[in-house]
Amino acid sequence: VSVNEGRSIPDPYQRELMLQEEASQQVGGRVELSAAEQRLDSFLRKLKEQEMVASPFPPAMHFFRAKPHIQKSPVFKVLQKMPKGAVLHVHSSALASVDWLVMNVTYRPHCYICFTWSGSVKFLFSTQRPFPQWGCSSWSLLEQLRATISDIPAFDKSLMRNLTLWTEDPDVAYPNQDTVWERFEQTFIAISGLISYAPVFKDYLYQGLQQLYDDNILYLELRAGLSMTYMLDGRVRDREWSLQTYKNITEQFRLEHPDFIGIRIIVTVHRELSLSQVKQTISDTIELQKRYPEIIAGFDLVGREDTGKSIWYFREALSVPTEVKANLSYFFHAGETDLDGTDVDRNVLDALLFNTTRIGHGFALAHHPLAKELSRKRGVPLEVCPISNQVLKLVSDLRNHPAAVLMSEGHPMVVSSDDPTLFGTTGLSYDFYEAFVGIGGLSANVGTLKELALNSIRYSSLSAAVKNKATAIWKQKWDKFILENS
Amino acid sequence: VSVNEGRSIPDPYQRELMLQEEASQQVGGRVELSAAEQRLDSFLRKLKEQEMVASPFPPAMHFFRAKPHIQKSPVFKVLQKMPKGAVLHVHSSALASVDWLVMNVTYRPHCYICFTWSGSVKFLFSTQRPFPQWGCSSWSLLEQLRATISDIPAFDKSLMRNLTLWTEDPDVAYPNQDTVWERFEQTFIAISGLISYAPVFKDYLYQGLQQLYDDNILYLELRAGLSMTYMLDGRVRDREWSLQTYKNITEQFRLEHPDFIGIRIIVTVHRELSLSQVKQTISDTIELQKRYPEIIAGFDLVGREDTGKSIWYFREALSVPTEVKANLSYFFHAGETDLDGTDVDRNVLDALLFNTTRIGHGFALAHHPLAKELSRKRGVPLEVCPISNQVLKLVSDLRNHPAAVLMSEGHPMVVSSDDPTLFGTTGLSYDFYEAFVGIGGLSANVGTLKELALNSIRYSSLSAAVKNKATAIWKQKWDKFILENS
Ligand SMILES: [Zn+2]
Ligand SMILES: [Zn+2]
Repeated sequence: VSVNEGRSIPDPYQRELMLQEEASQQVGGRVELSAAEQRLDSFLRKLKEQEMVASPFPPAMHFFRAKPHIQKSPVFKVLQKMPKGAVLHVHSSALASVDWLVMNVTYRPHCYICFTWSGSVKFLFSTQRPFPQWGCSSWSLLEQLRATISDIPAFDKSLMRNLTLWTEDPDVAYPNQDTVWERFEQTFIAISGLISYAPVFKDYLYQGLQQLYDDNILYLELRAGLSMTYMLDGRVRDREWSLQTYKNITEQFRLEHPDFIGIRIIVTVHRELSLSQVKQTISDTIELQKRYPEIIAGFDLVGREDTGKSIWYFREALSVPTEVKANLSYFFHAGETDLDGTDVDRNVLDALLFNTTRIGHGFALAHHPLAKELSRKRGVPLEVCPISNQVLKLVSDLRNHPAAVLMSEGHPMVVSSDDPTLFGTTGLSYDFYEAFVGIGGLSANVGTLKELALNSIRYSSLSAAVKNKATAIWKQKWDKFILENS
Repeated sequence: VSVNEGRSIPDPYQRELMLQEEASQQVGGRVELSAAEQRLDSFLRKLKEQEMVASPFPPAMHFFRAKPHIQKSPVFKVLQKMPKGAVLHVHSSALASVDWLVMNVTYRPHCYICFTWSGSVKFLFSTQRPFPQWGCSSWSLLEQLRATISDIPAFDKSLMRNLTLWTEDPDVAYPNQDTVWERFEQTFIAISGLISYAPVFKDYLYQGLQQLYDDNILYLELRAGLSMTYMLDGRVRDREWSLQTYKNITEQFRLEHPDFIGIRIIVTVHRELSLSQVKQTISDTIELQKRYPEIIAGFDLVGREDTGKSIWYFREALSVPTEVKANLSYFFHAGETDLDGTDVDRNVLDALLFNTTRIGHGFALAHHPLAKELSRKRGVPLEVCPISNQVLKLVSDLRNHPAAVLMSEGHPMVVSSDDPTLFGTTGLSYDFYEAFVGIGGLSANVGTLKELALNSIRYSSLSAAVKNKATAIWKQKWDKFILENS
């Protein structure tokens, strides 16, 4: 498209070409739409136009306030039905909904609770009353405790509040990133007592898969610490047992849902650990991957980047696979920060230098032109988690999420949910809503949705053969979805 | 810089080169710093690091809450002393501080006030009590009114609040863009009665220049509607008188401040007017420019883009200069919106198609890759007004301002203040603080500051000869500033 230079009047035809050229650059901008897809597109565009002029506009609000509005949104209802492909960035401790944890898990026998001095809770399943823990009240058997409580629904609600970040006034409860991250880490501790109980661990995984499946997702790549699980008598199961359980439960789930592809695990370690501990985990992961190549996808560092150690700090550990000629893929969280120009902010570049397969969040990538070019050339997608970034206070109005820039440039990306339990979501539909209506604005269309869904398969760690199979299953579901909604 | 492909361990030296290469791409990234400048840079970096870890972090807060913190900031104090070059985007109705308007102007004789039904005020200077206006109480002479008031400071403060958007709890007072824009337009009406009184008009301009000068600014490009002014007896002065006054007052100011370059006017018209009215103003501006070529810089459309007519709507009017072979430059407000993908959002492209010299705000430009490429190639800078964008609710945490992306890419830009009266600022230092500490983060350095200041001269409408002169004056001041602060 040529451009009029100097003083002349713009040619409407040229202008139209430029607008089309620009639109074609965005994510999904070159996707050819069938007549039926175009009908759905026009319909969604009209719905979106209505939502953009209405007040309140959910993507501009905190998700905790926006959620009831989103649930009423006709756009959201379409997105729920849409086959969204895979979810590539979810943590194993925040997979299933909090309702299920409280209403199912905490009602099981032998469930003890204690109340921490900082106002949180801990859980433990045990045949006998567990030994008291420092910083916590003595343990009460939940069954007995509930018998003494008059308003049990209110009590259960209070438990739910301890297992999520949800609060009525998030701006008051979390005035800054430090406060929300503190609650974030606390909540994981509260959840861990429930889900690391071996029988619950199994059901929890099954339940998590069911919730994804119900949200029209066909494959999961799960970031998991492979920590040990425990039994009623206090004995523990090692991480190999966890891995085997991931495998078995997934197989069981697939027997009952043959159109579900499965799960793979990205082994994670907290960035607060020492260099030698991280080195050890990487060596262990290499060994585990040899024995479970179909389930171990790779390795990642987790925990808050701003206060944790950088990727570059761990360079010696991260070089181990190359040194031992092992083929361990990396899936680094990087650039989940607004500390522009600091050491932390270099994680996006270092993730790429260590040949990361994808970038978790990459919130900082948009203002790293060189790293951005590199990830684009190498086809390294961002795992964009809009609700997570908003709740953890990187951005308030999601129209200002930096992925808006990257989306307009067609940068590789997928949409993900990070920690559904903690944010009060299930599946991907809420994050897709924020990405489609907020980040994408009116520019994002059915082509965008289609590319985002296909990207989630394309950029997964699956083998080419399984990708083909997943794509075929997705395509069938997509065609059905289009048929029923156009 | 080459990049290691495949599985190898990143080379620290290569990594360092990449970091340097990326840093060199940002605004000011290729500016060579003297030893003294480098000393100031290290000093500022240390100060900034301290501010980034401290809580609260002013750029993350609403400016009305941040202002007292900024005033205490050592970085801000350096920026106040820094020669900032020119201010290229300020509106004539919001040039001087509100303190001066209330404490000086409203204390002059013959100043009448009325109170509007919507809780605002209007002013009028008149020998006799003016005829009542619809929607307003009867007029009171301020001198008499003050005589009946016990707490005059409180009264004056209430007047000030009517002449700015300032409020203690901006999030409550302005829940959305509609409410803040309504107050915004209302406030201009309240101010206009004061400053369009001919004698005040002169003093106001002088005062405005003085405040810029005191903030180490040497040149002003003022967006002005060239509306009529009035006298005590109700007679009016035409816009030619206004133009002549701009000229005379500036000359008077320059006599007393020989190192001040002067002012030029960008004639503005409200985008709510009709096509034919805009056409007429453009024709008038072409005529005025012939008679006052040294003071008329060009033309612009003002008013809220989201609810107003688009640049493309006015294409017939905007084509007039080309048709009559006149050389009228455009300085369009464009992309002051978050309505991504709508017609409004196309203003950035259309501004460029009509060969705009600069883009006012361009908040939406970052997610228009084609328009961005065009403005970059043509050297069309963005006039970035951080505080304005925050107060008018486009962005809350200024680290998420899209100019952060553009700054990292070295896109042409200048920093400006838009409406100092309404936002409670004077000069450019507050906006420079937000741009340097918030938008730029730790990456922004003395090279960035130097380039931003030089850009304000480079991208002004001044002739090459005057630019050289302004640059020489600025350089002298800059060297002195570096000498005194390194
Ligand atoms: Zn994560
Ligand atoms: Zn403006």
